[in-house]
Amino acid sequence: MNLYSAPADWIWSGRYVITEDAQQRVIANGAIAIRGARILAVGTKAAIDAQYQARQRLDRPDAILAPGLIDTHTHAAMSLFRGIADDKNLQDWLERYIFPAEARNVTPEFVSWGTRLGCLEMLLGGTTTFTDMYYFEDVVAEVAKEAGMRGVLAETIIGFPSPDAKTPAAALASTEKYLARFRGDPLVVAAVGPHAIYTNSDETLKAARALANRYGAPLVMHLAETKKENDDQLAKRHMTATAALDSLGVFNGRTVAAHCVWVNGADLRILKTRGVGVAHCPSSNTKLASGIAPVTKMLALGIAVGLGPDGPASNNDLDMFEEMDLAAKLQKVATMDPRALPAATALEMATIGGARVLGMEKEIGSLEPGKLADVITVRLGRPNAVPVYDPVSQMVYALKADDVADVMVNGRAVVRNGRCLTLNEAQILAVAQEYGEKISRSLRGSPARRVP
Amino acid sequence: MNLYSAPADWIWSGRYVITEDAQQRVIANGAIAIRGARILAVGTKAAIDAQYQARQRLDRPDAILAPGLIDTHTHAAMSLFRGIADDKNLQDWLERYIFPAEARNVTPEFVSWGTRLGCLEMLLGGTTTFTDMYYFEDVVAEVAKEAGMRGVLAETIIGFPSPDAKTPAAALASTEKYLARFRGDPLVVAAVGPHAIYTNSDETLKAARALANRYGAPLVMHLAETKKENDDQLAKRHMTATAALDSLGVFNGRTVAAHCVWVNGADLRILKTRGVGVAHCPSSNTKLASGIAPVTKMLALGIAVGLGPDGPASNNDLDMFEEMDLAAKLQKVATMDPRALPAATALEMATIGGARVLGMEKEIGSLEPGKLADVITVRLGRPNAVPVYDPVSQMVYALKADDVADVMVNGRAVVRNGRCLTLNEAQILAVAQEYGEKISRSLRGSPARRVP
Repeated sequence: MNLYSAPADWIWSGRYVITEDAQQRVIANGAIAIRGARILAVGTKAAIDAQYQARQRLDRPDAILAPGLIDTHTHAAMSLFRGIADDKNLQDWLERYIFPAEARNVTPEFVSWGTRLGCLEMLLGGTTTFTDMYYFEDVVAEVAKEAGMRGVLAETIIGFPSPDAKTPAAALASTEKYLARFRGDPLVVAAVGPHAIYTNSDETLKAARALANRYGAPLVMHLAETKKENDDQLAKRHMTATAALDSLGVFNGRTVAAHCVWVNGADLRILKTRGVGVAHCPSSNTKLASGIAPVTKMLALGIAVGLGPDGPASNNDLDMFEEMDLAAKLQKVATMDPRALPAATALEMATIGGARVLGMEKEIGSLEPGKLADVITVRLGRPNAVPVYDPVSQMVYALKADDVADVMVNGRAVVRNGRCLTLNEAQILAVAQEYGEKISRSLRGSPARRVP
Repeated sequence: MNLYSAPADWIWSGRYVITEDAQQRVIANGAIAIRGARILAVGTKAAIDAQYQARQRLDRPDAILAPGLIDTHTHAAMSLFRGIADDKNLQDWLERYIFPAEARNVTPEFVSWGTRLGCLEMLLGGTTTFTDMYYFEDVVAEVAKEAGMRGVLAETIIGFPSPDAKTPAAALASTEKYLARFRGDPLVVAAVGPHAIYTNSDETLKAARALANRYGAPLVMHLAETKKENDDQLAKRHMTATAALDSLGVFNGRTVAAHCVWVNGADLRILKTRGVGVAHCPSSNTKLASGIAPVTKMLALGIAVGLGPDGPASNNDLDMFEEMDLAAKLQKVATMDPRALPAATALEMATIGGARVLGMEKEIGSLEPGKLADVITVRLGRPNAVPVYDPVSQMVYALKADDVADVMVNGRAVVRNGRCLTLNEAQILAVAQEYGEKISRSLRGSPARRVP
């Protein structure tokens, strides 16, 4: 103890601190000091210990400390539909399974338990911020706060009767109430979620943009996910989906666009010019055979690109470590260049890059003094984790969601040694299993079809 | 207890038993009875309990029982090179990192510790059989037996001085001794491993085939991994790599060919006609940007196709769950058909399909009476594992290597509740870390390059 040391609430130390700062510093035998919701200092353990006196500390001499992972696109409540319909073509998947399952099952209670299950999986796997789009998003926001997790949470606006709104006008009205309710929340950024160009009228899309801008809220939507989506717009308007949305003014404000698989050079220039952030979803895009987004081109143009697992009905999990690994491998094989999307870039997409997509890069995404304290520790003590030649490579190609030991969000420890401190795991798993049985019964002929 | 019940050594029961038998039966509330090294019976738990009286039992009411996973291609000892050189083009990777690292570090001791580390990771992740190709393969065989793991283990024959042989002739001679030594072993199938067509003379390749056939041993090799390999053969012989090997008679006997990325229709017919088994390595092929093997075409032709993680220097792990998941997703996006390579096929490739690749489908790869007892349990009690609509989909798309709880090989429990009973985990991790530091020192300028 040093008489001149400054007070801190926490010191966390580890074998390596991956900062994701502008210099991409990795500090061996590093530590961070935290006070309240924010990071006070980042440095070697020796320097931090000399400067700060902490009320509590967590020393992980055999772990990596890294910024919390940022999921830029998911539908967390769909965890309750995990694996309900695989290996289907998209039309079958949507019309025969997902839409009927949603129509028969999605209630506020479903959303609360589905989101709890999703938040539990995400937190245990090192995700500290999730970008969500679903129905009853106010319920999602309440669960995020209960979990102690950060979220950019978009209420869905869609052109047909949905579980929480009979019309787009009703959805817009309830979205406005939702935006007002969560304004200024320390964990929740309420957002506007017009589902896609092909599920909304032009008027609704424009109204969604106007609403978002009135509240300074981000607009979250799907964009150019499938070839059909883009082809249909080309047939209808002689414009790509991206150009059509731009011509409607939908990108005039903070926009998070998920997928962006079917984008040409002109589309990419639009995304760059308008500052649209892209949520790349490699697991979902491969599993649904949507295609491979031109991520290396986006990055070369300086477009902000993050990663998202999409919903667990098309993945079938919420595992950002797998998204990092797959994003890198997919771009390599798609470009036939093993240097494409290296590990450092994949980890950047999952951290500070994701923060840029959300327009939150001044607050989260890296371990730097003054930023919000969203931090994870990742163990290096399992057979898949040794030896370590490069901690960044290890994070992307060798470590797993299950190697995450501890998670802090906004200065609060929410996972400790692989156990969630905020959510009741046993209860959530039991309720989720009950929902699975109930949902199975609601869908004739689909569930557990190979089990006698 | 039933007076008329037959004795068994073990009964294992679970919520689902995935049999991978010819009917692909999944038995709810199922069990298997085991005596000695073999499975006595498979059925409902009620039926098995009524028929058999076991000395020991393992009841996992919240787990899947499945056949042990079969890895059809790896270089396990390269676990010590995990992450040593990522995101490089293949020539750089091989010539600037892997070959120098091997020349300076590969000794029998290196191979024994590297293989221990690999076996530990594989067993904890549910792999019960591995197909290996490396140097000092007798050491690999000894470690496999120490771990209680099944292996098809091929001594490398290569046309330049290697860590264990100065010439191909010396390698052939020591391979013969190795084949003789392990003949009839209950766990080890000793095999002949001519590295590839581009690293061996035609004479060596023919001699390797003849040697394998003299001992009834499989021949394991790399085939058509990169475009360059195939293009070079086309330039040299006006034949593809596959046709060239066929013309040399290399496929006249049991052959396990890894990769097979660059194969045309005629090549596929050769593989089918000669009964060559294919080890598909999706992680390695994407990470090294080798390409995407035409797996759906191979399967349509009835070629036996299994899965392999390849070595941890090009993956960077030994995780068969990730290979299943990636194999399915990669074929879907490559063919733009989400129905391509469904979950059931991916799991088949990792079990009975892999057994077919090795010519061992009468002994392993499914849970059926009379077969060797290679069995795993996979927990359904984690947030990524619920709900369960289809246990086969869950295995492929949602469950992780870390969800494996118990592993039995050849009737012997070798992993219990996530702990390896045969290998000393703490010691192996400590020695591996020491090797990492030593190997780093042996390679100027390459290791931990982002760490100050």
